[in-house]
Amino acid sequence: MPSLLSSGGALGASPLVRRSSSSTPPAAPEVVLTQQRYPVTRLPFSVVSAEDLAAFERILPGGVVTDPEVLEASNVDWLRTVRGCSKVLLRPRTSQEVARILRYCHERNLAVNPQGGNTGMVGGSVPVFDEIILSTTLMNQVISFNSVSGTLVCQAGCVLEELSRYVEERGFVMPLDLGAKGSCHIGGNVATNAGGLRFLRYGSLHGTVLGLEVVLADGTVLDCLTSLRKDNTGYDLKQLFIGSEGTLGVITAVSIQCPPKPRAVNVAFLGCPGFAEVLQTFSSGKELLGEILSAYEFMDAECMWLVTHHLRLASPVQESPFYVLVETSGSRAGHDSEKLSDFLERALSSGLVTDGTVATDQTRLKALWALRERISEALSRDGYVYKYDLSLPTERLYDLVSDLRARLGSQAKHVVGYGHLGDGNLHLNVTSEVFSPSLLADLEPYVYEWTARQRGSVSAEHGLGFKKRGVLSYSKPPEALRLMQQLKALLDPKGILNPYKTLPAQA
Amino acid sequence: MPSLLSSGGALGASPLVRRSSSSTPPAAPEVVLTQQRYPVTRLPFSVVSAEDLAAFERILPGGVVTDPEVLEASNVDWLRTVRGCSKVLLRPRTSQEVARILRYCHERNLAVNPQGGNTGMVGGSVPVFDEIILSTTLMNQVISFNSVSGTLVCQAGCVLEELSRYVEERGFVMPLDLGAKGSCHIGGNVATNAGGLRFLRYGSLHGTVLGLEVVLADGTVLDCLTSLRKDNTGYDLKQLFIGSEGTLGVITAVSIQCPPKPRAVNVAFLGCPGFAEVLQTFSSGKELLGEILSAYEFMDAECMWLVTHHLRLASPVQESPFYVLVETSGSRAGHDSEKLSDFLERALSSGLVTDGTVATDQTRLKALWALRERISEALSRDGYVYKYDLSLPTERLYDLVSDLRARLGSQAKHVVGYGHLGDGNLHLNVTSEVFSPSLLADLEPYVYEWTARQRGSVSAEHGLGFKKRGVLSYSKPPEALRLMQQLKALLDPKGILNPYKTLPAQA
Repeated sequence: MPSLLSSGGALGASPLVRRSSSSTPPAAPEVVLTQQRYPVTRLPFSVVSAEDLAAFERILPGGVVTDPEVLEASNVDWLRTVRGCSKVLLRPRTSQEVARILRYCHERNLAVNPQGGNTGMVGGSVPVFDEIILSTTLMNQVISFNSVSGTLVCQAGCVLEELSRYVEERGFVMPLDLGAKGSCHIGGNVATNAGGLRFLRYGSLHGTVLGLEVVLADGTVLDCLTSLRKDNTGYDLKQLFIGSEGTLGVITAVSIQCPPKPRAVNVAFLGCPGFAEVLQTFSSGKELLGEILSAYEFMDAECMWLVTHHLRLASPVQESPFYVLVETSGSRAGHDSEKLSDFLERALSSGLVTDGTVATDQTRLKALWALRERISEALSRDGYVYKYDLSLPTERLYDLVSDLRARLGSQAKHVVGYGHLGDGNLHLNVTSEVFSPSLLADLEPYVYEWTARQRGSVSAEHGLGFKKRGVLSYSKPPEALRLMQQLKALLDPKGILNPYKTLPAQA
Repeated sequence: MPSLLSSGGALGASPLVRRSSSSTPPAAPEVVLTQQRYPVTRLPFSVVSAEDLAAFERILPGGVVTDPEVLEASNVDWLRTVRGCSKVLLRPRTSQEVARILRYCHERNLAVNPQGGNTGMVGGSVPVFDEIILSTTLMNQVISFNSVSGTLVCQAGCVLEELSRYVEERGFVMPLDLGAKGSCHIGGNVATNAGGLRFLRYGSLHGTVLGLEVVLADGTVLDCLTSLRKDNTGYDLKQLFIGSEGTLGVITAVSIQCPPKPRAVNVAFLGCPGFAEVLQTFSSGKELLGEILSAYEFMDAECMWLVTHHLRLASPVQESPFYVLVETSGSRAGHDSEKLSDFLERALSSGLVTDGTVATDQTRLKALWALRERISEALSRDGYVYKYDLSLPTERLYDLVSDLRARLGSQAKHVVGYGHLGDGNLHLNVTSEVFSPSLLADLEPYVYEWTARQRGSVSAEHGLGFKKRGVLSYSKPPEALRLMQQLKALLDPKGILNPYKTLPAQA
């Protein structure tokens, strides 16, 4: 079972910072160094020397950054919870440059932290100690787009939102969408196997990614960058790297299948009297909306209280114990509204839904989505936040929230549940005025054990990174962990790629 | 580049049998032993002894078959092109029995040929020499079905058609469908990463398979049999085994996501004046049919000649250079027919399509599908068949057929192209009166080199098995082949699992 390190998951979820002693509030309080906050020991990698910097400068003229101010942004994660002390950031433009860098680092036993948009949730994208930061920022070129098949091939550093714009101008959409789309890189999305808002409709990246180019730890370029929908020649190697968080290789280019852009999008925001009705409404939606159902999200009454109270958003429906957001995406507006009307009529007349509103124009549509998307922001204004991202059997999904509410009693300010119900993905969050060790002790390992008993996942879509690597064994048996460690040893025998991430520290 | 063994792909495609010397035609002419027809050498595995049989009998009381007549069916593939000489067939009922068998075989250095329904196209499912046949036939139990989420968990030996019936009674469909559904096992489908008829709509098994239970070469049971749609805890190990043709582990149970059963299905069979129009009709179909487009198949005029001439099927439309079969599957019949009418109207009025017919009832629907599905059967009545299953960029897909027709001239009886156009998957077939070495020399390596120049796949959906393992390097670079060999060595260090399959013989 996981060590005490597992508590890092929750500890790291809120900006736990050193308060400045100055009386004027500092613009951005310093984040405590990861090596000071967590019980982690630096592995015996080499330290970057002046000769190393000179060698990098020869490989990447002008692409070697050592300015501490520039480095600061790459050493700290965007949640401001973990902080490394890397002294060098490399910005290659080509796979060949990445290959030369890794070949050099491999020979010199230098640890490397691959970094995309640095939007990860579990501290996977920043160094833990002084790992060299290998950024994909300048690898931002579209390589090709096939406007018949919708296949996009691009470098790993392309920003998701820019790719979305690019393919939408050509009549397609990216098969994934995330809150972080304005910053996240497609290479990082693939490396973390990002889920997000379009998962229900277009499925996992394991299905939509057609090919990858990956540079292995020793600098070997593995070219599996095909654009074929079907290819059964040997083992499907690209799958190994999807979700491996940069620990098995550095993704340098991605080939991905883009679905046609839906011509009509509708969003319904509904109030439900109970969680059983949330589930029944989902079943009814699958039946009546069929192939146009593209999202089914839920949130509880406490979530609505948080967004209306802290963010001054207005609830568009009457107060209810639960709310669901149903999105349809289809090719024909008339047909889609007919399906949606029938669904809503049945849901209302059968009492599954007590109130609701529908949006079709962009502004209203975004306003309804904001109620769901901004819960996280509202939570951070409520106090210290203990965050969990779990996969559970849909029918048991909310039981954990009710269970915890009873278990924690007045210790917690709020215990809330929301998430991608259509994918069985619960975002469970607990708040308290300030960080409380006793509350944490009541949460962990309770939440992980509860999840394990349901054969759930203790990380549905965020990955393990640095902060959750200690809890892997709640969701995977020892045989699986052993095979993962063997794969890591095979692909990265010196362990230089994103060390201290994904797999638990070896005993 | 592949060795001469690569020619096995075509050599093995037609029943090349020893003629009986008897004057009365034999019921089932004997298939030549693989070890006699191919340049393959037995690896130094142990030979099954009486003690081994006794040990198996202890593990599987009553489940050890040594009767040569029963063994015959499991030693020969269904295309009757390859034949092993195994002396023992094991029929476990549980994963634990599989684990005990493999642990024993691993210790004794006995080679094992995992076998499902034995419907593979490339000789992957039968022994090459005397490998022990490990059949999943008796592992045919449904473990669970969740009627809210549509998640099916079952043993590997469940027959696909039986699973289809099971989930259809509950309002869902299997995400894959194949001609061989009456015999093939779900475990074998996953092991070969079967494509088939629903790929365009529901995508790859890499996306729809949620979990696997796999027994490794040394008897370790790897339990990754979750039913979660999202799980980012560590590397996604199950992906390794999807499409690995039983060479990395024996799949013993499968968890798979079943989509809701469509309430309306339509099939349109259309004539097109050229391949450019086939492609444009596909684009138009994607636009106007959108989310209900579930299949887009094509066949050329020579295919139609073959099915009408050899099978006496009637063409439902006027003679055309090309034909396409368009299928829609949706949740609302009225909406679907409106979409289909608009699509057909535009296709006809713009001249993309010159004639067409539509079916909605089961009988007519099956009759239209038969024109496409029975091409393979018609080909086998035309003479000796050289078969290729290729993935190519859609826009170049038919160029190879035209190219070959010009190249081969009167040497070939027919050069035909058909297949899953929507997936970029061409079935290229050439016939001649009798097997011709000079024709084969004009076909290979020409077809493979042509495919490689387009960065296509020399095996789109059939896998490599025994017969195509020599051509892997036309579609994968040396770095990929090396990593595949390393993975094989890691997971099966003694090489006992399905030897002589998937990866080329090592030099």
